[in-house]
Amino acid sequence: MKTSVNDLFFGRYKELVRTGMIPYQWKVLNDDIDIKIEKERNDASIPSEKSHAIENFRIAAGRTKGEHYGWVFQDSDVYKWLEAAAYTLKNHPDDELKKITDEMVDLIADAQEQSGYLNTYFTIMEPDHKYKRLGESHELYCAGHFIEAAVAYHKVTGSKKVLDIAVKLADHIDSVFGPEEGKIHGCDGHEEVEIGLMRLYHLTGCERYMKLAEYFLLQRGQDPDFFKRQFREDTGKPAIEGLYNAPLTYFQIHAPILEQDSAEGHAVRLVYMCTALADIAASTGNKELEAVCRRIWRNIVDKRMYITGGIGSTVNGESFTLDYDLPNDTMYCETCASIGLIFFARQMLRLSAEGEFGDVMERALYNTALAGMALDGKHFFYVNPLEVVPEKSEKDPTKSHVKIVRPDWLGCACCPPNLARLLASVEDYIYTDKGDTVLVNLFIKSGMEKEYKGGTLSIDIDADYPRDGKISFTINNTGAAGAKVGIRIPGWSENTRAKVNEVKADITAECGYWYIETGSGETVVTLELDMAPGRWYANPFVSEDVDKVSVMRGPQVFCVEGIDNGDNLHLLSLPRTSELEFQWHDELLEGVGVIEADGIRREVSEERALYRKSGNDGAEPVKIRMIPYYAWANRGRNEMRVWLHEKV
Amino acid sequence: MKTSVNDLFFGRYKELVRTGMIPYQWKVLNDDIDIKIEKERNDASIPSEKSHAIENFRIAAGRTKGEHYGWVFQDSDVYKWLEAAAYTLKNHPDDELKKITDEMVDLIADAQEQSGYLNTYFTIMEPDHKYKRLGESHELYCAGHFIEAAVAYHKVTGSKKVLDIAVKLADHIDSVFGPEEGKIHGCDGHEEVEIGLMRLYHLTGCERYMKLAEYFLLQRGQDPDFFKRQFREDTGKPAIEGLYNAPLTYFQIHAPILEQDSAEGHAVRLVYMCTALADIAASTGNKELEAVCRRIWRNIVDKRMYITGGIGSTVNGESFTLDYDLPNDTMYCETCASIGLIFFARQMLRLSAEGEFGDVMERALYNTALAGMALDGKHFFYVNPLEVVPEKSEKDPTKSHVKIVRPDWLGCACCPPNLARLLASVEDYIYTDKGDTVLVNLFIKSGMEKEYKGGTLSIDIDADYPRDGKISFTINNTGAAGAKVGIRIPGWSENTRAKVNEVKADITAECGYWYIETGSGETVVTLELDMAPGRWYANPFVSEDVDKVSVMRGPQVFCVEGIDNGDNLHLLSLPRTSELEFQWHDELLEGVGVIEADGIRREVSEERALYRKSGNDGAEPVKIRMIPYYAWANRGRNEMRVWLHEKV
Repeated sequence: MKTSVNDLFFGRYKELVRTGMIPYQWKVLNDDIDIKIEKERNDASIPSEKSHAIENFRIAAGRTKGEHYGWVFQDSDVYKWLEAAAYTLKNHPDDELKKITDEMVDLIADAQEQSGYLNTYFTIMEPDHKYKRLGESHELYCAGHFIEAAVAYHKVTGSKKVLDIAVKLADHIDSVFGPEEGKIHGCDGHEEVEIGLMRLYHLTGCERYMKLAEYFLLQRGQDPDFFKRQFREDTGKPAIEGLYNAPLTYFQIHAPILEQDSAEGHAVRLVYMCTALADIAASTGNKELEAVCRRIWRNIVDKRMYITGGIGSTVNGESFTLDYDLPNDTMYCETCASIGLIFFARQMLRLSAEGEFGDVMERALYNTALAGMALDGKHFFYVNPLEVVPEKSEKDPTKSHVKIVRPDWLGCACCPPNLARLLASVEDYIYTDKGDTVLVNLFIKSGMEKEYKGGTLSIDIDADYPRDGKISFTINNTGAAGAKVGIRIPGWSENTRAKVNEVKADITAECGYWYIETGSGETVVTLELDMAPGRWYANPFVSEDVDKVSVMRGPQVFCVEGIDNGDNLHLLSLPRTSELEFQWHDELLEGVGVIEADGIRREVSEERALYRKSGNDGAEPVKIRMIPYYAWANRGRNEMRVWLHEKV
Repeated sequence: MKTSVNDLFFGRYKELVRTGMIPYQWKVLNDDIDIKIEKERNDASIPSEKSHAIENFRIAAGRTKGEHYGWVFQDSDVYKWLEAAAYTLKNHPDDELKKITDEMVDLIADAQEQSGYLNTYFTIMEPDHKYKRLGESHELYCAGHFIEAAVAYHKVTGSKKVLDIAVKLADHIDSVFGPEEGKIHGCDGHEEVEIGLMRLYHLTGCERYMKLAEYFLLQRGQDPDFFKRQFREDTGKPAIEGLYNAPLTYFQIHAPILEQDSAEGHAVRLVYMCTALADIAASTGNKELEAVCRRIWRNIVDKRMYITGGIGSTVNGESFTLDYDLPNDTMYCETCASIGLIFFARQMLRLSAEGEFGDVMERALYNTALAGMALDGKHFFYVNPLEVVPEKSEKDPTKSHVKIVRPDWLGCACCPPNLARLLASVEDYIYTDKGDTVLVNLFIKSGMEKEYKGGTLSIDIDADYPRDGKISFTINNTGAAGAKVGIRIPGWSENTRAKVNEVKADITAECGYWYIETGSGETVVTLELDMAPGRWYANPFVSEDVDKVSVMRGPQVFCVEGIDNGDNLHLLSLPRTSELEFQWHDELLEGVGVIEADGIRREVSEERALYRKSGNDGAEPVKIRMIPYYAWANRGRNEMRVWLHEKV
């Protein structure tokens, strides 16, 4: 399946990755730019002087002398960047960039040990403690990211060298870990190697890699004391101070994976785990693994996900907490966690064509993932709140993780290159190739072409989405007998209209997908999604959102900002009856839709007693102005809020 | 002024102190009881194996060998206990207890160094580092608590020995600290010694102690780098890990004290500072100091105090945050902070007869202070939330400081003995002797007698408060010409009725006090306070309480508990129009008033989508049952909530 994107909305992002993010991040990783790196939360132990990520490779490769600097997983920043660069090269061949990436591959090759082992921290700092502190070491995590990058880079450039490193690394890991006697019976504290191994399996067809990925997953929770035992027995120094004290749920080792039925612990780890699980389930038809994925998916989507597609309700352990616990101002909602949720959804679509998987993918993508980056592509959030009062973040250290504006870079820089690789490869999420059927999950202006039964099926999507809800799909079938196209009918669109070849058609969606039988020749399907702005309400079990309303239009959650509405946004109420008026503003925030509505602002005064018997405070009519959530915090320090009080 | 208490409500508490708390705490301090000591928050460094407080004295006195255990301020637990015991002995002479306390005084005398220095931690562990780490050392803090205890014990028992230790200690401190060359120009990280020195001044009339107290206070903020400089220069080991990183506000050293105008930093420190400031201002007429007290008071009462009289909005630094930032579920509201607010209010009443000082004192006393202890007198809260969902405290470490039920004892045990000394001396808060006038601040059944101008003024209060709002004051004046009685008319009582000598009288309150001119002989004043349960509303600047209502009756804040109302208390709404019915229940919670009202409970279901377009969830009528806040968490693990959603 070949794909290409020429979308207005994501086209801008893809250009931003190519012309902005890739060069910017390369400079950051090389410590070649004067920026302020911020700690992602109030913790003295966070390394935030510089990135040093490339220098770590130079040292490990023996090209320079020095100590490793940064997180134990600093290598992964480079791998994710390399992966993003690969996707960029696919659509935009660029000799200059290719020279840089090829040299980076050379450097990685030099940093790889003879055995195949690859991790600059342990090679430089703790060569005698490899795989001895797996709970915190991120060795396999980094390996997974390298393998992902290598597969991507190989596919685009044909580089044999990068694939050799990956295979040598994977084979090395396979020789060290596994159920066999003499091997380590363990897994990494942070899931990711499983994703990498599955990608290597898909590329090479070598089942050994899938088996190893499955082994790592099934190993979780089999020996819950494993990490702590390693910590106790190893004499090396901690790679991450304090991780030793994390609860078992943090690592998803509190129960054997087949018995897990809720989203627990570190949110990114959980969704990475599920991504690999679903991939294996889809690749093998393993129903037990599929059942785990479905249980955890249901728990996330029904009880533990913010309306923005954010996940992780607490900064402590960047973790899930409990059902319906979704505080709007202290949560984590890490950018990477929503990216991971998108990965998970993509694999679930391979498992089963269900519109909800696409709905959630779209929700996480258009809201939290995009909010993770400023419109300039050079400033990043780690944490994506649904409510910010700047002074609270500044004066209450328990909210210090809730940044008010996006920093240039973060001490833990997992999110920026993760976002780069996601955006650079967004076409991989638009379409799901299910053999006879191609699913269209996202409404991004793009093209797809695949060979099927000796013929060719192609789809051209024309859209100006999410600005406009009218989308046309030009489907051409040249001899691909029986090929079908499944178009996602979003759950949020209540009144979707459709035409097939200019004739009004009834949409008969099965599980959220409308299947178009494609005869020989061209079929043109047009959808008109219901893009009227609407009010959304949380299940009342969510205590934080009782009597509150949020506004969405299409897949986009909207929010109010202080710059448009004045401070003390909690004083605003949106009456249930007031009209939500949408208008496009080309000049604003790189082009953005604004929703306005008649609202009420309570009148307050510092003169009024802090507590008094009368609850009759005055109120004045105001115009409430909302912008899409992804675009918030691009106009300086100010308040923001997604959930508004509602006057019924 | 002689006072006595024979109140039903506080009488029970005073008996509990005498028969329960004093013996229980003595056993705890001696490690002579099998209890579970809990860390007050999720912090591995908190010592919670045992108290060891008495043993520390034995070691310092050279009677046994060993190491100091516990917080660097562990001594203060013993001092506060001794102070509570002294008050108890005043009303209930008890040879057995007196023997124990005398022996404790002997032990303290033995632990005191030749120089007058007294602190078991430094004597045992770091004898070469005295006064070299004042930001964290609590040496002067502990000294202050000892002096307070000594003054109390001396007044009750006439013990010369205890006073000698105190004078020797105070003189020693005076010789070490002060503006003179060669002395240390610094103060303690935790205000308290100033309160002790003022009490010693009041007892002895020696102005040197007041001058020293004033010096310590005025020194704050003069040399903001002082603590950090000491930390850097001293070679001893940290007494409290990490305190070095606390912001200047934590210690109230961010600005010279005369320039401070808001309540900043660690809440207990702030109110202890203000207590001493107000005491000096009242004792000297210093208007500059009074102005500081008034500014900070206004800031607390108008913008930073919970309706329960709790203060300290964040666990991080147990601190104030910013105006109107009063989260109900993550706050600190330390018991000691409300006790300190009561101390502060008491000194403000010495400065000026203003009803608000009495109102706040009563609010803090009847709500947060009493909530700090279980009805059995043997379990204690450090943190007093306004909203608890047990699973959130259990599963989100950022709420681990919010305990669900009161532990037996706490790693940092400042609150239990602080509460003991407050309750044992509650009579000192009922009356304020202002020379020609005696203020009656609290409506506690009690008696007062004072000599004035060669005559005697006595007041007998008869009350069954807060159960009943009818209070009678029998005032006898025998030759105390011109003596007046000022009775506080609570700000919350909207329709107070009164009689003087059985004749209906108009209340003409000045600044919240109604002054009764007492001729020769008996005057009987009866008040009937408005005890109708009422709805209270927070200033809408408090974002957490928008569209919410709390219920009070008299001085008591009420709350709902899960045991009476089912879980998910956030689903309850109290309509503005429903009647609040009060009924007394002798059998419940040692006798308690219950308020019932017709309310609404939203119907919810796990089947309902987490987010959907309809906000019309069902609701069913329910009876909402409220109990006084102080009595919550006495019936096991369950939810609790003070602020209810309101249906207007």
